[in-house]
Amino acid sequence: MSERYRAGLDNLMRLSGDTAELVSDQVAAEAPEFVRLMVEFAFADILARPGLDLRARLLVAIGVLAARDRTPPQLRWFVRSALRAGIPAAEIVETLMQVSVFAGFANATNALETCADLLCDQSPSAASCPVPISAP
Amino acid sequence: MSERYRAGLDNLMRLSGDTAELVSDQVAAEAPEFVRLMVEFAFADILARPGLDLRARLLVAIGVLAARDRTPPQLRWFVRSALRAGIPAAEIVETLMQVSVFAGFANATNALETCADLLCDQSPSAASCPVPISAP
Amino acid sequence: MSERYRAGLDNLMRLSGDTAELVSDQVAAEAPEFVRLMVEFAFADILARPGLDLRARLLVAIGVLAARDRTPPQLRWFVRSALRAGIPAAEIVETLMQVSVFAGFANATNALETCADLLCDQSPSAASCPVPISAP
Amino acid sequence: MSERYRAGLDNLMRLSGDTAELVSDQVAAEAPEFVRLMVEFAFADILARPGLDLRARLLVAIGVLAARDRTPPQLRWFVRSALRAGIPAAEIVETLMQVSVFAGFANATNALETCADLLCDQSPSAASCPVPISAP
Amino acid sequence: MSERYRAGLDNLMRLSGDTAELVSDQVAAEAPEFVRLMVEFAFADILARPGLDLRARLLVAIGVLAARDRTPPQLRWFVRSALRAGIPAAEIVETLMQVSVFAGFANATNALETCADLLCDQSPSAASCPVPISAP
Amino acid sequence: MSERYRAGLDNLMRLSGDTAELVSDQVAAEAPEFVRLMVEFAFADILARPGLDLRARLLVAIGVLAARDRTPPQLRWFVRSALRAGIPAAEIVETLMQVSVFAGFANATNALETCADLLCDQSPSAASCPVPISAP
Repeated sequence: MSERYRAGLDNLMRLSGDTAELVSDQVAAEAPEFVRLMVEFAFADILARPGLDLRARLLVAIGVLAARDRTPPQLRWFVRSALRAGIPAAEIVETLMQVSVFAGFANATNALETCADLLCDQSPSAASCPVPISAP
Repeated sequence: MSERYRAGLDNLMRLSGDTAELVSDQVAAEAPEFVRLMVEFAFADILARPGLDLRARLLVAIGVLAARDRTPPQLRWFVRSALRAGIPAAEIVETLMQVSVFAGFANATNALETCADLLCDQSPSAASCPVPISAP
Repeated sequence: MSERYRAGLDNLMRLSGDTAELVSDQVAAEAPEFVRLMVEFAFADILARPGLDLRARLLVAIGVLAARDRTPPQLRWFVRSALRAGIPAAEIVETLMQVSVFAGFANATNALETCADLLCDQSPSAASCPVPISAP
Repeated sequence: MSERYRAGLDNLMRLSGDTAELVSDQVAAEAPEFVRLMVEFAFADILARPGLDLRARLLVAIGVLAARDRTPPQLRWFVRSALRAGIPAAEIVETLMQVSVFAGFANATNALETCADLLCDQSPSAASCPVPISAP
Repeated sequence: MSERYRAGLDNLMRLSGDTAELVSDQVAAEAPEFVRLMVEFAFADILARPGLDLRARLLVAIGVLAARDRTPPQLRWFVRSALRAGIPAAEIVETLMQVSVFAGFANATNALETCADLLCDQSPSAASCPVPISAP
Repeated sequence: MSERYRAGLDNLMRLSGDTAELVSDQVAAEAPEFVRLMVEFAFADILARPGLDLRARLLVAIGVLAARDRTPPQLRWFVRSALRAGIPAAEIVETLMQVSVFAGFANATNALETCADLLCDQSPSAASCPVPISAP
C-alpha cells in the first residue's frame, strides 16, 4: 500500500466517515487499480492539498457535480461529506440554487431532488428543510 | 406573492393544467425560494414574453432538453404541456428525431424512450403511436 | 451522385443560398465521404421530412446549438438560414434568450455574441438591432 | 426494405447477436422511421465502413459513450457487442479507466458501475472480475 | 428601472468595478431585455442572497464555468471579480486544479490557459505566477 | 523528480517527440504542480498501463476529445501523436466521422476542421488529404 494511497484513504475516511462508500463493491472488484488511482489522485494529490480550505473545496465539488448533472452518486457523496464537515444544509442549498445561473434550472432542480433526503433530514415535515422561509 | 410570481404561476398552470407538478413536494420544501425564483424567471420573465409563439417556445424547449439528455422530468413536463397545447404527437417525434443531427442518436433515442408513454397514448398496440408509417 | 445526396443538396441550397458553405474547403477535401453522408442524412433524411414545418425546424436547431455552445459555425449557419427563410431577427433573439432557462446565462450570452452581427445588421447603431425596446 | 437498411441490420445483428435489441419495442412503435434512419446511417453508412477495424470502432464507441455519461443503454449495448466480438473485458475496463483523464473520475466510475455485471461475469465472486490484480 | 435591476447593477459593479463589462456593447444593443433579466436574476436574485458568503459564491462560479469549458468570457469575468474581492490567485489556481478530478485534465488546463494572464500578473517572469513552487 | 513523473515524461516524449508541448509556458509557470500531477496521472498511471495497446488508447482519446468538442489543443496534441505513432490519417478521419453517430455532426465537423492541417498535410491540393475517394 503506497504512501499516497494511505494518505488518500485517510482523507477519504475523514470526509465520509467509515461507513460511506465511494464506489460499489462491484466496481472495486471490477477495477481495483482504478479505485486505487482515484483515491491517490483525487483524495491525496488534489483534495488534500493545503492551498484551499475544505469548505471551499467541498462547495466547489458540489457546484461542479450539480452543473454536470449526470453524477448523482458522486453529488450525494459530497453533499453527505459537506454536512459531516459542518457546512449548514442551507449553504449547500444556496450553492445548488446558484448553479441555475450557469447551467439552467433543470440541473439545479435535479440536484436539489437528488439530495432532498440528505438536505431535508428525511423528515416528512417541511419544517425540517433548510430554507423553510416562505413556500411559494 | 409578487406580481411576477402570480404571472408565472398563471402561465405554468395554463401550460400544465392543475394536476401537473413542476417540482416534487420535497424540492418545494427544501428550496422554496428557488421554486419562486424559477417560476418568476422561467415562466413570467421568459416563457410568457410576447415575441415568440407558444408552439415554437415549447418545441425549442423539448429540443434543447432532449439534446442535453440529463433532464427526463423536465423533458416529460414540456412534452405533456406541448400535447395539452394541441401540438400533435407526430410533430414532437419529429423534433426529437431532429436532435440526432445535432446531438447524436443516443440522445434522440433516450428522449423517445423517456416520453414513449406520453407520445404513444399508453396503449399496448403500436397502432396508437404517432408515426405508424412503416415499422422497419 | 445518389438521389438522397441530390435531395439533401437541394434542401441545403434552399436554406442557405448558393454562397453559404456548410463546411470549409479543407474539411470537404479531408473527409468528402463525411460531407456526403452528412448532406444525405441531415438535409435529406431529417430536415426535409414533411412532418414539421421549416420555421419550427430552424428554431429548434438554433436552440439546440446555442444550448450546446460549442458549435459557433453551425449556429451561425442556421441563424443565417433562418433569416433567409423570413424568420424575424427578434424571434431568433427570443429563442436564444429562452436558452438561458435550460442551459444558463453564459450559453445564451455567448450565442447572442456569436450571432450579433447577423442579428444586428452589422450597423454600428443600436437602432438596427432587433429588440431595441429599452436598453437597460 | 432498402439496401442500406438491410446492410445496417446485418451489421447490427453481427454485432449484437439475434437477441440484443437496440431500442425498446415502444420506441420502435413510436418512431419507426427514426429507427430505420439510425440503422441505415449508424450501422450501414458509418460503422460498416472499411477504413477502421471493428475493435477500434467498438472501443472508441465505448470511450465516447462513457465520456458523455448520459447513455447507459447504449454504453451497455456496445460493451456487450465488444465482448461478443472477442475483446477481452480487461481491455474494456482499461478503456473506461482512461476516460477519467479526459472526462473526470465520476464518468469513469459510473460507466464501470453501469457495465459491472457485463464485465464481471455476473458472478457474486470478485475473482471473476477482469482486473483482479490487487484490490486496494 | 426596477428595484431588482438597480440592486443587480449595484452588485455587479461591486464585483467587477466600473470598467469591467459583463456583455459586449453589441449584445447589449441586440438583446437589452436579456441583459436586464440576467442582471436582475443572476446578480440581484441569486448572487446577492445572504445565505452564502461572496468568496464561496465566486469560487463555485469559477469551478462550474471551468468544468463546462465553453465560456471563457464568463470565466475571465469571475476570475477578475474574485481577484478584486481579495481572493488570492493561488486559491483560484487550486480551484481550477480541482476541476480535473470532476471534468478531466483538458478542462482544467484550458481554464488555466484562459486566465493565465490574470493569474500570472502578465509578467514574462514565472516568478510572478501564483504557485511558483517547483516547475516540473 | 519522482519516479512517476519521470515515467510520465518519458511516455509523453515518446508520444509527442521532443518539440511538441502539452501545455503553454504560461500554464507551466502558473500551475507547475498541476502540470506535474497531470504528467504523473495521465501519462504514467493511465496511458502507460500495459492492458491496452497504444493505437487503441490514442484512437479512444481522439474520439472522446472530439465528442466533447471543447478542447482543440488537446485534440490536436493527440492527433499529432497518433500520426507520429504511425496511425494512418485515414483511420483518424474514420474515428472522427464515427463521432457523428454519438455526438452529432457539428462535433465531428469541428474536429475535422480543427485538425484539417494535420490530416491534410498542409498542402493546398486536396489530393494530399487522407480520404480523397470521391468528393461530393
